[in-house]
Amino acid sequence: MPDFAAPLQRLIDEFRRLPGVGQKSAQRLAFYVLRSSRDQAAALASALIDVKDNLGICAECNNISDAELCPYCRDPNRDRTRICVVEEPHNILAVETTRSFNGLYHVLHGAISPLRGIGPEQLKIKGLLSRIEQGDVQEIIMATNPTVEGEATAVYLSRLLKPLGMKVMRIAMGIPVGSDLEFADEVTMLKSLENRREM
Amino acid sequence: MPDFAAPLQRLIDEFRRLPGVGQKSAQRLAFYVLRSSRDQAAALASALIDVKDNLGICAECNNISDAELCPYCRDPNRDRTRICVVEEPHNILAVETTRSFNGLYHVLHGAISPLRGIGPEQLKIKGLLSRIEQGDVQEIIMATNPTVEGEATAVYLSRLLKPLGMKVMRIAMGIPVGSDLEFADEVTMLKSLENRREM
Repeated sequence: MPDFAAPLQRLIDEFRRLPGVGQKSAQRLAFYVLRSSRDQAAALASALIDVKDNLGICAECNNISDAELCPYCRDPNRDRTRICVVEEPHNILAVETTRSFNGLYHVLHGAISPLRGIGPEQLKIKGLLSRIEQGDVQEIIMATNPTVEGEATAVYLSRLLKPLGMKVMRIAMGIPVGSDLEFADEVTMLKSLENRREM
Repeated sequence: MPDFAAPLQRLIDEFRRLPGVGQKSAQRLAFYVLRSSRDQAAALASALIDVKDNLGICAECNNISDAELCPYCRDPNRDRTRICVVEEPHNILAVETTRSFNGLYHVLHGAISPLRGIGPEQLKIKGLLSRIEQGDVQEIIMATNPTVEGEATAVYLSRLLKPLGMKVMRIAMGIPVGSDLEFADEVTMLKSLENRREM
């Protein structure tokens, strides 16, 4: 290993802890910081602290928020009869980029995973139930991940919510658009067949 | 564009300014920081500041250093008769990873580039000359990049140093090991032919 000056080595180590950043990328980022202005480094440093100190969780949907309510829950133009349930705050992005959903969200902050000891009681389900009790909600769209854990969570919630008179939907699983049948695994192909639609 | 809480958007923007980090990666990094502990975010933040505040340049070779002399210049076991000249501090890494060079370095902090208005006077050449004047140095290895700028710099320095009795060498250019002739551009192929060695 080459000898780096201690502060440089420390910055490389800290960058390496970020996801998707290996030794080479960490070095490249650290050398970039070295070459850039002190102001730019300070801006990133303060943004890092700011995000930890000034962000909380939306009191309504558990999305990340710098106010009591997140922008979606605050927005009077969103359709309050539909709630899209997701595992993590960043999953909201994937739905929002479609620009086709105008309802509200509910973030569970996880998924049921017996292997990792995560049961329904560790998820933010209570808040969802009290939102439903308020009476506006008619449809729940389960947008948990198409994994064993996400599927288990969707099934669990569906059994819980249907007796409350909710229309509970699940996002479709199938072949990704632009992909090739050749690359589809058998479970995806099976889902794609099962979910076939008349043309 | 989805609505991010302001501190989150700011962190995403700051990450995006790093090299090789696009919108998606910046979001992934920012959400990772959100999920990680405050201590971890603070460690990265302070490493960023530390690197700007506590690192300077080696008085001897212009490498990045947290002391007056960098680890290579301090090391009594390095061969003081050979100096490897590189453009930037991170180029030292590439040479060090070969474990085959035990001499010292000299960092120019740039290369001659008339197009960008960078002439020899903007490079750290004076220090190299005074190191040579001290009398120990016998061989200079030009490890500037194999680009027009790096080549121009190597030629310029070679003309300057040869009259001082230095043995001035240039690193070899040719087909990368493990690559295929098919993918070599014509200039590289030409260099590879010109630099052929008897087997």
